[in-house]
Amino acid sequence: MTVRAAVAGASGYAGGEVLRLLAGHPEAEVGALTGNSNAGQRLGALQPHLVPFADRVLEETTTEVLAGHDVVFLALPHGQSAAVAEQLGDGVLVVDCGADFRLTDAADWEKFYGTPHAGTWPYGLPELPGAREALKGSRRIAVPGCYPTAVSLALAPAYAAGLAEPEAVVVAATGTSGAGKALKPHLLGSEVMGSMSPYGVGGVHRHTPEMVQNLSAAAGERVTVSFTPTLAPMSRGILATCSAKARPGVTGEGLRAAYEKAYQDEPFVTLLPEGQWPATAAVQGSNSAQLQVAYDESADRVLVVSAIDNLTKGTAGGAVQSMNIALGLPEGLGLSTIGVAP
Amino acid sequence: MTVRAAVAGASGYAGGEVLRLLAGHPEAEVGALTGNSNAGQRLGALQPHLVPFADRVLEETTTEVLAGHDVVFLALPHGQSAAVAEQLGDGVLVVDCGADFRLTDAADWEKFYGTPHAGTWPYGLPELPGAREALKGSRRIAVPGCYPTAVSLALAPAYAAGLAEPEAVVVAATGTSGAGKALKPHLLGSEVMGSMSPYGVGGVHRHTPEMVQNLSAAAGERVTVSFTPTLAPMSRGILATCSAKARPGVTGEGLRAAYEKAYQDEPFVTLLPEGQWPATAAVQGSNSAQLQVAYDESADRVLVVSAIDNLTKGTAGGAVQSMNIALGLPEGLGLSTIGVAP
Amino acid sequence: MTVRAAVAGASGYAGGEVLRLLAGHPEAEVGALTGNSNAGQRLGALQPHLVPFADRVLEETTTEVLAGHDVVFLALPHGQSAAVAEQLGDGVLVVDCGADFRLTDAADWEKFYGTPHAGTWPYGLPELPGAREALKGSRRIAVPGCYPTAVSLALAPAYAAGLAEPEAVVVAATGTSGAGKALKPHLLGSEVMGSMSPYGVGGVHRHTPEMVQNLSAAAGERVTVSFTPTLAPMSRGILATCSAKARPGVTGEGLRAAYEKAYQDEPFVTLLPEGQWPATAAVQGSNSAQLQVAYDESADRVLVVSAIDNLTKGTAGGAVQSMNIALGLPEGLGLSTIGVAP
Amino acid sequence: MTVRAAVAGASGYAGGEVLRLLAGHPEAEVGALTGNSNAGQRLGALQPHLVPFADRVLEETTTEVLAGHDVVFLALPHGQSAAVAEQLGDGVLVVDCGADFRLTDAADWEKFYGTPHAGTWPYGLPELPGAREALKGSRRIAVPGCYPTAVSLALAPAYAAGLAEPEAVVVAATGTSGAGKALKPHLLGSEVMGSMSPYGVGGVHRHTPEMVQNLSAAAGERVTVSFTPTLAPMSRGILATCSAKARPGVTGEGLRAAYEKAYQDEPFVTLLPEGQWPATAAVQGSNSAQLQVAYDESADRVLVVSAIDNLTKGTAGGAVQSMNIALGLPEGLGLSTIGVAP
Repeated sequence: MTVRAAVAGASGYAGGEVLRLLAGHPEAEVGALTGNSNAGQRLGALQPHLVPFADRVLEETTTEVLAGHDVVFLALPHGQSAAVAEQLGDGVLVVDCGADFRLTDAADWEKFYGTPHAGTWPYGLPELPGAREALKGSRRIAVPGCYPTAVSLALAPAYAAGLAEPEAVVVAATGTSGAGKALKPHLLGSEVMGSMSPYGVGGVHRHTPEMVQNLSAAAGERVTVSFTPTLAPMSRGILATCSAKARPGVTGEGLRAAYEKAYQDEPFVTLLPEGQWPATAAVQGSNSAQLQVAYDESADRVLVVSAIDNLTKGTAGGAVQSMNIALGLPEGLGLSTIGVAP
Repeated sequence: MTVRAAVAGASGYAGGEVLRLLAGHPEAEVGALTGNSNAGQRLGALQPHLVPFADRVLEETTTEVLAGHDVVFLALPHGQSAAVAEQLGDGVLVVDCGADFRLTDAADWEKFYGTPHAGTWPYGLPELPGAREALKGSRRIAVPGCYPTAVSLALAPAYAAGLAEPEAVVVAATGTSGAGKALKPHLLGSEVMGSMSPYGVGGVHRHTPEMVQNLSAAAGERVTVSFTPTLAPMSRGILATCSAKARPGVTGEGLRAAYEKAYQDEPFVTLLPEGQWPATAAVQGSNSAQLQVAYDESADRVLVVSAIDNLTKGTAGGAVQSMNIALGLPEGLGLSTIGVAP
Repeated sequence: MTVRAAVAGASGYAGGEVLRLLAGHPEAEVGALTGNSNAGQRLGALQPHLVPFADRVLEETTTEVLAGHDVVFLALPHGQSAAVAEQLGDGVLVVDCGADFRLTDAADWEKFYGTPHAGTWPYGLPELPGAREALKGSRRIAVPGCYPTAVSLALAPAYAAGLAEPEAVVVAATGTSGAGKALKPHLLGSEVMGSMSPYGVGGVHRHTPEMVQNLSAAAGERVTVSFTPTLAPMSRGILATCSAKARPGVTGEGLRAAYEKAYQDEPFVTLLPEGQWPATAAVQGSNSAQLQVAYDESADRVLVVSAIDNLTKGTAGGAVQSMNIALGLPEGLGLSTIGVAP
Repeated sequence: MTVRAAVAGASGYAGGEVLRLLAGHPEAEVGALTGNSNAGQRLGALQPHLVPFADRVLEETTTEVLAGHDVVFLALPHGQSAAVAEQLGDGVLVVDCGADFRLTDAADWEKFYGTPHAGTWPYGLPELPGAREALKGSRRIAVPGCYPTAVSLALAPAYAAGLAEPEAVVVAATGTSGAGKALKPHLLGSEVMGSMSPYGVGGVHRHTPEMVQNLSAAAGERVTVSFTPTLAPMSRGILATCSAKARPGVTGEGLRAAYEKAYQDEPFVTLLPEGQWPATAAVQGSNSAQLQVAYDESADRVLVVSAIDNLTKGTAGGAVQSMNIALGLPEGLGLSTIGVAP
């Protein structure tokens, strides 16, 4: 089965990563590539690492251009996916790397994004309970945010197993590609290198309600998330340090057993051996998440640290993995568990 | 008044930073420089940035070599300071950059460091309540750990003002110089660059009891600290993201007012204007701490982020600032609030 | 055809990269993995990015362990390959990532490496004139050094076309993985980040005679190379800036035409469009080399800049590419031209 | 003597560094601070490291604002200095960090900058022969470019001593601050980190004629310079690798002796001991240049590598050093030879 795929927004970091993965996907054939402000340019000038597509010229993101594909990946600014998706019809699989269809709660959407809610699509994090089933055969996929991917993989098992109180505290460091290619002063190399800084502090980051949604579903009760994102001097990677007060009776062994059980059959999630902690370099360019857990007795807290590549498992890898499920392909097709390190 | 100062451990990062600051201190004169495994070597080969001292040759760390100075800075491995200090006598000011004399609780010391407790010296974080007074005229100073400096500056005012519940959660990122010059595989540039990773997870990091000590003193009750340190791809800097459940009635305004009051007269602590968040690059090489506070309504938590340079305010700068106080010199002599950025 | 491959030295950077590529090679099956000081350890503790091999335990590098494979990759310290290779016999393809069999001139070898010359094997840089033919069916392959790969690809066409005088000047920047995992102070992250520094200056770097050998062969006369390697604050990548006095009559157009012709059929070498310059990030983790050329009229010099990944095209990728040729497999099997960027 | 100084362009990297140095200058008092597009903003929002000036508000760059100071530092885009300087009159010392008055040859200026030549001012690199004398008492100073500073310090002694042929080859790596705060895609942190790339290749970089001018003056004949700048993943620093064919009879000892003699009395230039090579981290934030020399016998070339901080010795430090000379102050006032390392 050959899958003909278009990428809308191929000049950005998310679109570029989708393209990188599709190039190595044995069943994918790359069709139209679009970019808005960059339409008309050679892709090679914008994404010099994508050698096989260097001479492709970006087209406008229109229904005509995107029509006639089996799959369309949307790597567009938030709020632009709904209109495009509607016109594409139900025959095509639309995989939205944007936020538009992630949230189930319209009020949350409107509070954090400020526009009317467009709806909710099956959620592209197959490792969450029930998510894989919902993706099978679907024609629409909402790819999770990069932080919610790292945090949900880290904490959902603790909540599903009833090991943690419903008040999570998350501090996550991201590589700068998570902020996209926007030309903002604080994203200049001179500002970023040698520096760590927080942003979106105090519960205002847009990925917060998505984490709340996922963890609440796992817990069966509302979970609050105190989320602080920080920008780290690296291009890729998310390290999420997640904790919550332990429920009575939690032990280190019990905690570990819950995670072993949760992820024993998941090819893209690795619970590291005791004593080894995740590092983002180990998952660079891969679809892997690496986790470690601890029970901090003195603070009586459950602690989980996860590492992913924000562009791969956190965006494009999760998108391709979900596409595979939707299309009935082997889930790991075209995806590697191996990072590019050092 | 000319202060003749020796530096024991001048070949390491902490000792080198002490030396850098002493070189710019108008009342300091640099005397003996010692290093153990490096004794006999030119300092220029080990610390090429310390140009004026390049031709100085490191001596052995002995009482004879260190005698005859007004101040002796000890930048030695943990556990080596007590013996040296005892032999130096009471006439000399001993400033210990190691951990040996930081903790008041002998049981904590023995649990985390595994050796008998050597005692407790006045604590070199003048911005903590009562600390400045205790330093005046003292002949012994225990320089705080780098993480406890960042975290205590961040959370002490909230605890002193009764705004936070006594269960703090801290995730901090440090530059690699915090780990010293030890030749360990995970500290190689190839491993560190492009990567974030945690270490000492689950309440086991040795700086934890020091934070507990400082925050408990501020709160007037025992405060637990869930502390997760992470290694960031930068040479210098600590970004500490600290939070605790808010006490009833806390507001963003009240929180901010407490910090404004706490630090309005502190030259080395800056509460940033609303909307601006700290970045470690801004304090690189300086003795400044930059802070920002927020009340996260949805999670009902007090959140404070602080940035310091681990080697300056977090070690050598704090040491010199405390020395100035002990000797009756202007507190900021030889110290800059200005970072080397970008 | 399934190729059973062993990797001797799987705990180092070169060996790890070989393993990463073999894992994605459709005809390769990974057999024995050895490491000397690390024998007995789980690979996952040493190479956490190699998830599928995490539970493999490193064996000693012995003939018994390496026997019974179709291919043995040697990623050993210089000087150790000859003894191992001899014992493996002619039935097995031995691919040496070390220097032992690269040089044809015994005197050069002895001068730069200080040990007796072990011999010369077919040279694993298929893009050089005649090299591909020599690799076909060979049972022995000497993988080029990383710098000679970058520099020979950059300058060989100019010399082969008679466009440059036989005195080349090369300044190259390398990522720190080029120096291996050795625990040396100047390779610590704290020292490397934010810093550029040269090493092996003045014609003494061991890769110099290898460049001289390759460029002289292309030129048909002895070419001298003034080579200065520099260490850059990045984990991977080589950027080689190469120049030589132009032969009379050289023009920018003529220069460009020579490179277009030289590389038009080479899948792993890209001459970038005019106006676009190579960046190492674009080739990270890929087997690609990206080149650009210029004729500097005011200095009358031919200038070529090349970018490769030192571990991929510069070591393990070149090794796999050469293995493919030797075994009669499609040359690009298991290799990607696409870099992991940003 | 108190010197009242204004900084035009205080929101940029060069202007910020001037301000950082003035804050530590015992005779300087900081007056007006201007910024064009940023006029009206708090400096703290733009330069958070400049704590003492955080509440200063940037003014427009007008004659009225700049009048009434003893010194005016111009850190403006190329081409804007002449008009400002003319209006300031001869009573004020104008120190231009831009390129406008660096070149003596009007044709060179017009070729590389494309505007009419405004004139030539005394050149702010006191270590060049004759330069210090020309600065004494001057009311106008042209601060050298950062690359020409590094390259001229590296090669002028060899040319002055007749040791090198008049065809220099220079490859230099710069930190990204050398490119300023302009919002360009290739300067984003995501693009820069983990990557080396050249730019301005083939003799077209605007600093080329300035190097030619300085080296030709030292040599007493026209020296050509093949100059390739590269962008390195660091915020600050220049490492310049410079070489030229040796004149007959050159030896390593003779070369070294020439540099010892040239710089023995220069406080800001350090010829490192044999065997030690410069690293940019060692000069970070300092006004030092560190040099090493070698004679490469096999290529018969003189090789010199220099390291400076592009913003300090390469711009603002050189500016303050030259100001000191012009005003008759001690040359090193307010400047440190010590870098902020690691």
